[in-house]
Amino acid sequence: MKFELLRKDGSARLGKIHTAHGVIDTPVFMPVGTAASVKALTIEELKRIGPQIILNNTYHLMLRPGIDLIDRLGGVHKLMNWDGAVLSDSGGFQVWSLASMRKVREEGVEFRSHLDGSLQFLSPEVSIDIQSRMGVDIAMAFDECPAYGLSHAEVAESMERTHRWARRSLGALASSPAGHAASSPPGGRTRDASGPAGGTPALRPALFGIVQGGIYSDLRARSAEVISSMDFDGVAIGGVSVGETKVEMLDVMRHTAPLLPEEKPRYLMGVGTPQDLLDGVAAGIDMFDCVMPTRNARNGTLFTSEGKIAIKNARFAADEGPLDPRCACVTCRTVSRAYLRHLYVTGEISALVYNTIHNVFFYLDLMRSVRQAIALDSFGAFRETFLSAPTNEGS
Amino acid sequence: MKFELLRKDGSARLGKIHTAHGVIDTPVFMPVGTAASVKALTIEELKRIGPQIILNNTYHLMLRPGIDLIDRLGGVHKLMNWDGAVLSDSGGFQVWSLASMRKVREEGVEFRSHLDGSLQFLSPEVSIDIQSRMGVDIAMAFDECPAYGLSHAEVAESMERTHRWARRSLGALASSPAGHAASSPPGGRTRDASGPAGGTPALRPALFGIVQGGIYSDLRARSAEVISSMDFDGVAIGGVSVGETKVEMLDVMRHTAPLLPEEKPRYLMGVGTPQDLLDGVAAGIDMFDCVMPTRNARNGTLFTSEGKIAIKNARFAADEGPLDPRCACVTCRTVSRAYLRHLYVTGEISALVYNTIHNVFFYLDLMRSVRQAIALDSFGAFRETFLSAPTNEGS
Repeated sequence: MKFELLRKDGSARLGKIHTAHGVIDTPVFMPVGTAASVKALTIEELKRIGPQIILNNTYHLMLRPGIDLIDRLGGVHKLMNWDGAVLSDSGGFQVWSLASMRKVREEGVEFRSHLDGSLQFLSPEVSIDIQSRMGVDIAMAFDECPAYGLSHAEVAESMERTHRWARRSLGALASSPAGHAASSPPGGRTRDASGPAGGTPALRPALFGIVQGGIYSDLRARSAEVISSMDFDGVAIGGVSVGETKVEMLDVMRHTAPLLPEEKPRYLMGVGTPQDLLDGVAAGIDMFDCVMPTRNARNGTLFTSEGKIAIKNARFAADEGPLDPRCACVTCRTVSRAYLRHLYVTGEISALVYNTIHNVFFYLDLMRSVRQAIALDSFGAFRETFLSAPTNEGS
Repeated sequence: MKFELLRKDGSARLGKIHTAHGVIDTPVFMPVGTAASVKALTIEELKRIGPQIILNNTYHLMLRPGIDLIDRLGGVHKLMNWDGAVLSDSGGFQVWSLASMRKVREEGVEFRSHLDGSLQFLSPEVSIDIQSRMGVDIAMAFDECPAYGLSHAEVAESMERTHRWARRSLGALASSPAGHAASSPPGGRTRDASGPAGGTPALRPALFGIVQGGIYSDLRARSAEVISSMDFDGVAIGGVSVGETKVEMLDVMRHTAPLLPEEKPRYLMGVGTPQDLLDGVAAGIDMFDCVMPTRNARNGTLFTSEGKIAIKNARFAADEGPLDPRCACVTCRTVSRAYLRHLYVTGEISALVYNTIHNVFFYLDLMRSVRQAIALDSFGAFRETFLSAPTNEGS
């Protein structure tokens, strides 16, 4: 993996990340494909929407279908038939948010699966092994994600463990057998053409460290310093979107981002609304992921250039216009608001497909506009215009 | 509407139905788009699969979104952005299968909606009015669909009412204002290009009569004679798939089909398995519809050239092969059985999309093969080969 910082417009950064599965233009939004599927989208539909990178969840995939099976099937790219880049989280966040009976020791975390109650274990070494065998392009260090509301002392203790686990994650990667990344070269890859796993020299994933420290600015500064000093390929701000207020999240981000290495990509984990993305870019963030576009799609909440709408609203019942007149997605090009409302109210599965296509496209399109604005040194004006639209209050 | 009978191979018929929304090659299978959507498929996905005609359910659409709204939005073609042909049922079958508190009088049927309990009314005149305003290409006469297990006398009485209603359906169409069919010419039709409804001279839908008579061969013969004598554009065999045995259904079909007019298309309503379709074609049926491919897709039951499979079966967990090696659909071209099993077991919405794409494609592909076989005078051999595959037991 290689990161090129192409230009800056204020603190906003325009860049490129080169991976074994293509180039990623930054700032980038990564759609979430939790279980190796971006929810309602087939892989062909996803390719038409056109993200350069998606996110897979290690926690979900280690439980189902399990890493041994994923490994045997040639990694997540081959499993999904996805030629673009993949970033995996480390499993840490979801152990804290989904699993039960967590037992945290220095060695790692023992927990019970939310699916069947089975006993599971994650540690820096196990997480890196799983992510490597998944064959992802970018892996994340295994961290502890402290709950919102903990004391300074509790968060500090957790943060120090995250730092020790970060070192162990780096060590684990250096000594791990490589995954499937290079056995599946990008372009022209098909199920029939790709050989059995392991037949060619494999690449290790790039590895990003994660800054923790909760809402405490001294801890964030300390964590940024420690994680930045390690030999990671990129640095993430973790431990946000865990229940803190919007103001607290923005404070953490604005405080932390400038402390991160200029020459490495910066990733704000699990964020957020369109407004959050613009705020993040303004603070110098390069990468984002969030379930918001896909989850909202399933709830009938749709993002448009005129703000968020609830498609079930009766005012759309006879609305023959497209969902968003400024959007070029398949949904906006082919069907009306009236039809989308009808499908959603009727509970048709196609409603979820149409909605997901649009919301994911909207997020990607927003980031395309952001990159264009940075390239033209007009990001500040672009952001002002976007945020001043009365309905884009952002949450 | 115009029907061309191109050739026969035994009793199997090859034909073409010309409509305002394109040509339909027969024998044809019509995917069911109950609520103006073929379940998990976007309209673009449906077009890629390529049916020439789909079926809409009058009962469902009159309840939601309602005929006034459909009319205002320019008819079902415009609502769905569908350029192909549409056949609507009359609502009769679903009043009998879904609605509660039915009160049948000579005038029509009063019933309560299964959605909100609201009082509704359907009669030949109301049904034809709704179907015309939907702007469908082929409408069905309003019939009574007697329950399985009724006596000869009860079925005879119901059948005579269906005959009287058939005459009234024809009369209602002749005197009805035309629908949206011709205001939406086929080809190049987009939301922006199509003018407001009613701006151009409109076409009335073609109208098919329905033969009833339950499992009583004398009544079926009588009904076939009466319905065939009326000025319908096609004739359907109704009152099957209501609980009778497979043998009884086949007996009704084989007994009735030869009694129908040679020069009109023959439609077997609500049938059936791939085997049923081949049996129907062998008996001289031209048109079929069934929820089986779409409903089975949602249950994870998939049709393949090697028989039906339950994709959740553990034997597919590590199966890297395509769902059906002989199938050219998007699902079979892009993902493995292992991935499809994973998505289905995990409950991903994309599983329903992949499965629906395949099952609908499978049915359409089967009918393409059937038409090719008839064209080559080899339908008998084709059917023998298909039915002799050990796993194609058909139900």
